[in-house]
Amino acid sequence: MSRQADQRAQLAEFRRSIDNIDAALVFLLSERFKVTQKVGAYKAQEGLPAADPSREEAQIARLRALAADAQLDPEFSEKFLRFIINEVIRHHEQASAS
Amino acid sequence: MSRQADQRAQLAEFRRSIDNIDAALVFLLSERFKVTQKVGAYKAQEGLPAADPSREEAQIARLRALAADAQLDPEFSEKFLRFIINEVIRHHEQASAS
Repeated sequence: MSRQADQRAQLAEFRRSIDNIDAALVFLLSERFKVTQKVGAYKAQEGLPAADPSREEAQIARLRALAADAQLDPEFSEKFLRFIINEVIRHHEQASAS
Repeated sequence: MSRQADQRAQLAEFRRSIDNIDAALVFLLSERFKVTQKVGAYKAQEGLPAADPSREEAQIARLRALAADAQLDPEFSEKFLRFIINEVIRHHEQASAS
């Protein structure tokens, strides 16, 4: 094989792994939003407050510890959780506006 | 059980599922970054350009289609991929600065 063909084959191999992981991430995120939608509906039904700062703090602490175990930057794991939580809040706002 | 105890038990059940999914997400993200670190090192070694806009476009199109399958907002899946790619770029910048 030419060097270029080698490079293409090597990059394609890496990319197949990235694509598999991305598919798994998308399907997991979809399941996660199903649960948070149930939580939102349940809290609305029971008249419970939507936000729970102590739960959020506990989630962040837990994810940072898991990230350290997984050799992932704990700062990133916290940014990631906030990114997801912001989307959950957007869903709840859309649900209460409809 | 009192209504409050019922509510606590129901929320705790939802939260155990969210926590399980979050742990899976953290471990998957860690694997994903391992692969992108290998890609970065390989591209540097071979003198290949770090960015590949056509690959990025293909990833976004693929994730949007997967998101639709998973009943996840395709807009969110695109935002999510960009969030992850920004972190990959940050890793590569750190690696080339060290």
